[in-house]
Amino acid sequence: MIKKKAAIVGASGYSGEELVRLLLVHPHIELGAVTSRQNAGQSLAQVFPKFANHPGAKSLRFSEPRADLLARQAQTIFLALPHGLAAEYAVPLLQLGCQVIDLSADFRVREPSVYKEFYAQDHPAPELLNQAVYGLPELYRARIKEASLVASPGCYPTSILLPIVPLIRAGLVKATGIIADSLSGVSGAGRKAEMDYLFVECNESVRPYGVPKHRHLSEIEQELSLAAGAPVTIQFTPHLIPVNRGILTTLYLAPEQHFGDNKAMSELGDKIAACYQAAYGNEPFVRLLDDEALPDTKNVAGTNVIEIAWRLDPRTGRLLVMSAEDNLIKGASGQAVQSMNIMCGFPETAGLV
Amino acid sequence: MIKKKAAIVGASGYSGEELVRLLLVHPHIELGAVTSRQNAGQSLAQVFPKFANHPGAKSLRFSEPRADLLARQAQTIFLALPHGLAAEYAVPLLQLGCQVIDLSADFRVREPSVYKEFYAQDHPAPELLNQAVYGLPELYRARIKEASLVASPGCYPTSILLPIVPLIRAGLVKATGIIADSLSGVSGAGRKAEMDYLFVECNESVRPYGVPKHRHLSEIEQELSLAAGAPVTIQFTPHLIPVNRGILTTLYLAPEQHFGDNKAMSELGDKIAACYQAAYGNEPFVRLLDDEALPDTKNVAGTNVIEIAWRLDPRTGRLLVMSAEDNLIKGASGQAVQSMNIMCGFPETAGLV
Amino acid sequence: MIKKKAAIVGASGYSGEELVRLLLVHPHIELGAVTSRQNAGQSLAQVFPKFANHPGAKSLRFSEPRADLLARQAQTIFLALPHGLAAEYAVPLLQLGCQVIDLSADFRVREPSVYKEFYAQDHPAPELLNQAVYGLPELYRARIKEASLVASPGCYPTSILLPIVPLIRAGLVKATGIIADSLSGVSGAGRKAEMDYLFVECNESVRPYGVPKHRHLSEIEQELSLAAGAPVTIQFTPHLIPVNRGILTTLYLAPEQHFGDNKAMSELGDKIAACYQAAYGNEPFVRLLDDEALPDTKNVAGTNVIEIAWRLDPRTGRLLVMSAEDNLIKGASGQAVQSMNIMCGFPETAGLV
Amino acid sequence: MIKKKAAIVGASGYSGEELVRLLLVHPHIELGAVTSRQNAGQSLAQVFPKFANHPGAKSLRFSEPRADLLARQAQTIFLALPHGLAAEYAVPLLQLGCQVIDLSADFRVREPSVYKEFYAQDHPAPELLNQAVYGLPELYRARIKEASLVASPGCYPTSILLPIVPLIRAGLVKATGIIADSLSGVSGAGRKAEMDYLFVECNESVRPYGVPKHRHLSEIEQELSLAAGAPVTIQFTPHLIPVNRGILTTLYLAPEQHFGDNKAMSELGDKIAACYQAAYGNEPFVRLLDDEALPDTKNVAGTNVIEIAWRLDPRTGRLLVMSAEDNLIKGASGQAVQSMNIMCGFPETAGLV
Repeated sequence: MIKKKAAIVGASGYSGEELVRLLLVHPHIELGAVTSRQNAGQSLAQVFPKFANHPGAKSLRFSEPRADLLARQAQTIFLALPHGLAAEYAVPLLQLGCQVIDLSADFRVREPSVYKEFYAQDHPAPELLNQAVYGLPELYRARIKEASLVASPGCYPTSILLPIVPLIRAGLVKATGIIADSLSGVSGAGRKAEMDYLFVECNESVRPYGVPKHRHLSEIEQELSLAAGAPVTIQFTPHLIPVNRGILTTLYLAPEQHFGDNKAMSELGDKIAACYQAAYGNEPFVRLLDDEALPDTKNVAGTNVIEIAWRLDPRTGRLLVMSAEDNLIKGASGQAVQSMNIMCGFPETAGLV
Repeated sequence: MIKKKAAIVGASGYSGEELVRLLLVHPHIELGAVTSRQNAGQSLAQVFPKFANHPGAKSLRFSEPRADLLARQAQTIFLALPHGLAAEYAVPLLQLGCQVIDLSADFRVREPSVYKEFYAQDHPAPELLNQAVYGLPELYRARIKEASLVASPGCYPTSILLPIVPLIRAGLVKATGIIADSLSGVSGAGRKAEMDYLFVECNESVRPYGVPKHRHLSEIEQELSLAAGAPVTIQFTPHLIPVNRGILTTLYLAPEQHFGDNKAMSELGDKIAACYQAAYGNEPFVRLLDDEALPDTKNVAGTNVIEIAWRLDPRTGRLLVMSAEDNLIKGASGQAVQSMNIMCGFPETAGLV
Repeated sequence: MIKKKAAIVGASGYSGEELVRLLLVHPHIELGAVTSRQNAGQSLAQVFPKFANHPGAKSLRFSEPRADLLARQAQTIFLALPHGLAAEYAVPLLQLGCQVIDLSADFRVREPSVYKEFYAQDHPAPELLNQAVYGLPELYRARIKEASLVASPGCYPTSILLPIVPLIRAGLVKATGIIADSLSGVSGAGRKAEMDYLFVECNESVRPYGVPKHRHLSEIEQELSLAAGAPVTIQFTPHLIPVNRGILTTLYLAPEQHFGDNKAMSELGDKIAACYQAAYGNEPFVRLLDDEALPDTKNVAGTNVIEIAWRLDPRTGRLLVMSAEDNLIKGASGQAVQSMNIMCGFPETAGLV
Repeated sequence: MIKKKAAIVGASGYSGEELVRLLLVHPHIELGAVTSRQNAGQSLAQVFPKFANHPGAKSLRFSEPRADLLARQAQTIFLALPHGLAAEYAVPLLQLGCQVIDLSADFRVREPSVYKEFYAQDHPAPELLNQAVYGLPELYRARIKEASLVASPGCYPTSILLPIVPLIRAGLVKATGIIADSLSGVSGAGRKAEMDYLFVECNESVRPYGVPKHRHLSEIEQELSLAAGAPVTIQFTPHLIPVNRGILTTLYLAPEQHFGDNKAMSELGDKIAACYQAAYGNEPFVRLLDDEALPDTKNVAGTNVIEIAWRLDPRTGRLLVMSAEDNLIKGASGQAVQSMNIMCGFPETAGLV
């Protein structure tokens, strides 16, 4: 079988590095090019010694990102760039006929005004917003299959949307009053030489940040509003914790139905279980936890899997839903590869565990 | 000045060890005895080499806990024992005229039925519940001063009650619908040889546990109900994170007053700031954060300080309050020493930073 | 292609768990059975939720280890058991015609007296010592190919032997005065509920242990003696550091040749480089670092690769060699799979990265 | 008792921050000034919220460092600056009559040529080298008492010199062939926004660096040479490990005396024990470990104590000595305060634990 060629623009950050790792061992992909302004001219092995042994890595060298060259080197292009910059590459690459999977926020929101509100700049390519597909395969598989431009979701949004959307679609929980409390590993901050992310500043530390209006709210609320058929506003609090990888999200939801007695609680529980089973029972990368188990980031680290568990609390009348994912894989690069598999007609699990 | 004698029953756990550290350097205390069933007969320096250099530690040796001997060796006794067992020592020690500061849950709740509901056993000494004082100095200083039995609060309750109680007392927030999302370091689980707390199981891991009905809810809801003058039920989700020490709590509260516009928000903000200033402006161990700062466990680790910050969210109408403390100090042993200082008439900050 | 069946005896420890992970995705293996006394009767997914999504894991259930049943369920058996116990299974399994790959120390040393000196018990099956092959593929590939019983090396020995043996064989360094200073992640201690390995005891801690006569010296010195053609005694100091995985070894060696001036140093450097290139230039799992790079456990974690770098020190006349490996993969389970690939005629890199 | 005034130049790095912490609670010191170019104008509490509660911290504000102002604000000045820069302040401060305790490398070596060899620049104030005293109180207490300029030792040198010097002075070990293998926490790299020290790059990582000629060799070899009465060259390998604080050093030494049998080994052991007892038996900050105990950085973190243990290895004829210290306290700021206590006539343990 002839392999398809892919390229990674911005391959020296954490998401880019993870894309390199995944694509080097992907059974249907040949990694045709990697770019990085700061590492241009260096071999892949020099920048990432850990890839030196991969046969596909020997001849790869970081180049300056140029759309025209990239379009000759690959059909599928991953953009692992800061927002704003990503759009600058997406425009010409699409014109040159490439499939583009963008890991930045540039094409995640549909309204330029929302982009401006949350990212404090005019949208760089509003004409593309209509054609972009939000790359959550479990929700938009059919549209991803037809897409030429996929906006791969943020790490926090993935951990929040996958657990909530089925419940809202099924009318099981209210779309109001939702609270998402998330804990993220430090790689979520990117590979940036900033004091706040030094080992000594993060180790033996846990802290909230970006409250109360984190940028990821824009895409989270957009998708929840679509599911609810009405505008949704949520509370979202991210925290930084001393792990390399992983997001643990705890969601506080209000069931539409009261469950004052054991019978009502049991019936509601059955509906929730059935809802999740219908939505994700056959999904290869969603693990619905049974019994006593609760999500733990160490059980998903290094994989494209998201774990989900839930509990009804008869004391408060709330539904708690908890999820765990690897922020760099299901929350970023793995999910992007999952979308690529769908776009290219590969088995959806190809190259992913 | 003649030093007063203190003893620690159960000095080989993490709270007990921290009490040893604090009392060895306390200016008005001589550590008269330390007990431990498992380490009886060993010197303090053998069990904790790090104390070997303290002049006061040279001659100390762990003994079997016996109330009659303890009452001869010390006037103030700290109980750092599991719940249930603590009461067995409190009863005779009080009869023998000792001051008792209990770090277990045995005397924190006032109703034996609540104790039974949450701790799954009959209360071992219900006749003492009336005389026990809940040892949160910032809330109960006057009563601690007169107490002979102090029930030192749990680590989570301290991180939740100090931020909320003043707001409820002032009528600024509703006592309904409260959510407390807490992250705790692993020392909170105690020094127990269990698989779940092995390094490899906790490092690079974050996970919720004990949902939805953690034992600490009993004392949290009791104290919130007292503040509100009506029964309060809250949502509480603890998580385990890979740090040795520290609790970070994020509280989701509903202000009594709406704040739809900037003016209302500003007015409400002033009230909240004034409320906290009145409650804690002169408290040596409460740090109200200004400006942009948010709590961080690394800024309180090793100290008896709790940090508090808050934000109004005009998008959701909620008030977020965040706190950070060292679970072993302000959340346990430091707070117990603070109570002792009050009971004994020492300066409240003696021996604490 | 029909898959071959393998089984893992003692699959609930860290090495066993890692074997499960590797064999579940191995292209030529079907995992036929996993045993564990403590988890017998539970499904693989219950014990390790992270494997629940693997198609091959759905039907697997831990059983009590019984040689007769295992021999019907698989042709290749991995023993991930404590020393002493492993031999008890190896004997009947070999008689029943299985290939046995033992990850314990039972068949690593050739002399029963050495076993007794270091493991404080009589060797449980001395009659098998002659037929066992020490499973370091880079040194004993041909013999592993013919073996029915492979003694997979210890984690420390792998990190020490691979860097030194080629130098000794080539006569470039003295076999006397060797010092190996090693740093190991906590998973090396196994999944044991002991105080010493609790998170709080290991985090923010680094400590030597097992000095001066660690058990792994028995196999290290045996193999170095074979390489040197004369008895070798070395100094070995293991340390425990707060990482889950990884061993970093620093070796202090004395070159046979003095290198007082730049020319001599340059010539000696060329010989060392050539020696390593000849030994490992084509090895898929040995990465010889160039230029300025030094080994780092994070670059080998999760892989079967060992990194090696070296420096001549003209000030002291010594040769420093440094290696990094994942103690659970190249130091245990990955290396065992590598041996299996050789024994079974699979590509040596099958199922390994 | 009237407090003496001290100032810290360069108080925003890790050593400077630790000096602030120590001096704020020092019983005989008032912290008169803190300087920092990058934080000039900000209050101490803004930069370090954790000090906000200290009464002495309320009015402190970072200023630009100016020698003339500093000399009016304090009698004792700590320089926590990069090498090269420190000398620029030491010169005028000494002329203005201040006591100067320099934590940089500027005055640690006596020969300008050695400084140039290791620090790649001309010594900025060679005329002061004669008057500087190397600030290891356990070795140079009498001279520190008379000094106006103390060169406080590096973190690695402290962990190496204190264990070795008594043995060399007593003629118990050879001064040749010494190997020092050290493991340091990340704070040793300073508070610098560099990629190498990001959380994600250090966590789950261990790596050697700076081999084979680390700058600290200059002062280590100088002091060992003085002890031996002849030039000493040693092998020194530093490693970076994922802890905030702590250095663990393992030393490989050759006893002058062979100890082939138990009797000789026992006699040599007695001599070593007696040597250490004579040197450090009464030292408040040296803990000689007995029995089975080995050093552990967690037992010294947060204190000014260095732990030392040793083992004779009859298999190799070597003496192993292991030490543990907090690199920021005994390895930097605590030791500097210890020197200040001696210079000022305070009790040597004042303000230190």
